[in-house]
Amino acid sequence: MTSDLSALPPGSMIGILGGGQLGRMLSLAASKLGMRTHIYCPDANSPAFEVTPHKTVAAYDDEMALAAFADAVDVITYEFENVPAATAEFLAARKPLRPGARALAISQDRLAEKSFLASKNIPVAPHRAVATPADLDAAMEELGLPAVLKTTRLGYDGKGQRVIRERSEAAEAFAALEPKPLVLEAFVPFEKEISVVVARNLPGEVRSFDAAENMHRHHILFTSTVPADIPPGLEKHAAMLAKVIVVALDYVGVLGVEFFVVPGERPSLMVNEIAPRVHNSGHWTEAVCLTDQFEQHIRAILGWPLGDPARLADVVMENLVGDEVGIVPDGIDGNTQPHLYGKTETRPGRKMGHVNRIVRGA
Amino acid sequence: MTSDLSALPPGSMIGILGGGQLGRMLSLAASKLGMRTHIYCPDANSPAFEVTPHKTVAAYDDEMALAAFADAVDVITYEFENVPAATAEFLAARKPLRPGARALAISQDRLAEKSFLASKNIPVAPHRAVATPADLDAAMEELGLPAVLKTTRLGYDGKGQRVIRERSEAAEAFAALEPKPLVLEAFVPFEKEISVVVARNLPGEVRSFDAAENMHRHHILFTSTVPADIPPGLEKHAAMLAKVIVVALDYVGVLGVEFFVVPGERPSLMVNEIAPRVHNSGHWTEAVCLTDQFEQHIRAILGWPLGDPARLADVVMENLVGDEVGIVPDGIDGNTQPHLYGKTETRPGRKMGHVNRIVRGA
Repeated sequence: MTSDLSALPPGSMIGILGGGQLGRMLSLAASKLGMRTHIYCPDANSPAFEVTPHKTVAAYDDEMALAAFADAVDVITYEFENVPAATAEFLAARKPLRPGARALAISQDRLAEKSFLASKNIPVAPHRAVATPADLDAAMEELGLPAVLKTTRLGYDGKGQRVIRERSEAAEAFAALEPKPLVLEAFVPFEKEISVVVARNLPGEVRSFDAAENMHRHHILFTSTVPADIPPGLEKHAAMLAKVIVVALDYVGVLGVEFFVVPGERPSLMVNEIAPRVHNSGHWTEAVCLTDQFEQHIRAILGWPLGDPARLADVVMENLVGDEVGIVPDGIDGNTQPHLYGKTETRPGRKMGHVNRIVRGA
Repeated sequence: MTSDLSALPPGSMIGILGGGQLGRMLSLAASKLGMRTHIYCPDANSPAFEVTPHKTVAAYDDEMALAAFADAVDVITYEFENVPAATAEFLAARKPLRPGARALAISQDRLAEKSFLASKNIPVAPHRAVATPADLDAAMEELGLPAVLKTTRLGYDGKGQRVIRERSEAAEAFAALEPKPLVLEAFVPFEKEISVVVARNLPGEVRSFDAAENMHRHHILFTSTVPADIPPGLEKHAAMLAKVIVVALDYVGVLGVEFFVVPGERPSLMVNEIAPRVHNSGHWTEAVCLTDQFEQHIRAILGWPLGDPARLADVVMENLVGDEVGIVPDGIDGNTQPHLYGKTETRPGRKMGHVNRIVRGA
């Protein structure tokens, strides 16, 4: 809406789309900087509603509610990449939307994302668009098997994808995955996954946090360990690629970049996906960095100078999924920093909180 | 009300008396632990009202409002020591009040505080109770001049005290200070002031943060520097005295202890005052400790294990008073962590926020 680069002052109202744990943690970080926050979420039971008196409970396509929300705030951000394009456009016409609509559009569409990355010479897995069974046949021919068939939209935590090991599995996988079109990705024999959380602020300053090494369990992030056990040159390269991405997108805010580390004579990197928001694999920053990812995002969208992302200790972040939240408080020792999301209902597979286990002497 | 030592679970509602910056920061820390908070404050414009949807705007002697507040929460704490005794009793009869009424009673009365400390063999400045001009004459005779005449109640940030350098100043000082009775304290030729923030939880575990060295300006805390420039033995001694105090009070929560460092062949300590709450000179803990004083207070009153107070870097906390808040955001560099209190009106002498300047490599 505006190209004004001036910093928003303390006391500004930050509108946040999405009332889950990421919106909640963004709100807490904004409060620390003297800001106010207004949470917009369709779910009346959202955990982020517990950390501010300002809220809108409405659907993302409710234009009356969206207009009132835009009127009430000074800048708008979001906790999830699946903000509908029409919602993003509607809001961006009224108040600054940061990160912008382009980052949303690209990260919502796995195919658009891979094309964008490839256009910037950033390595991604070989892939083919798959709109029809015939496309899938041709793609399997070209990429070989095993391969992974994925939806281009609305996938997260392993949802919306199927591994195809044999051609006989193809028809069922194609039928099962919605919405179409799909994308077939060559199976990447990666050694590990790392991620880099990078920030770019309104005037264009870029800083990234140290890379985290991620382990998954049942397709949900289980642990992020920092430092990652990778050669220093590879970590520098990951930060450089992350910078290329945010600069190319004219991005404002924090962005998560997931990389595969591909073994070889010299291990190399391949971008798995990007997320235009604070990232689960960056929750460790809260415990051990001078500035954490949540404050960094708020600083970035306010047009403030970025904070120092330097890390003061080694750390392992572990998600508490479902009943695992029961280890708090009695199962935690002093070196373990819990962060619970205030969700009233515990469900299997639901992220209820995380802990940061700190190893002193980084 | 109850002697139940069991831990309160995530999702519990914490009632906080007082809606200033300390209440606000306690609420933010409680949210991080998955708790909800309800702020009680007579001032409708309180900064803490911006970080939770649950509030009561009512006077501290409004028994209807207090009863409803007590009904709505699981445990009650406070951000300031001047909670009226009747309010504390009324609430403590309904829900656990932590820290308890005894800590309030003692810390509200400078004379009761000094008597308590002296009874535990903790060094305090020589002092005399002063109810009448004749008491003051006798006290000046015994303690000598200069000396400091103070109210026993409701003093803070240098308010409620007068230095008496000559006898001719005594009558005016006595007349000016209210409420009576007063206390005359011998002038302590201290070299510096340090403070220790100590925590004791419901089961009785005690941990203290490193000592901070405090500088004042116009009687308001200006900077707290950590580590304090004092011999290691003296710092250990300060922590030991702080522990004696919380154990003697059967205290639950975080308590601030201010000490004078008195020069001599071997420098010694004298307790200046105690505050039964999180303390301005502990705001540095937020930037560099595994657990900060706000989370430590919440853990303590919940009956949770205390967190590790270990410090990861050297730091200088600087209060932003009045217009000084204007240095944010443009006057801060990356190593400087701002924390603003969200106060809508800037007034001279009003604490608007603080910054933590971090020196890496502790």
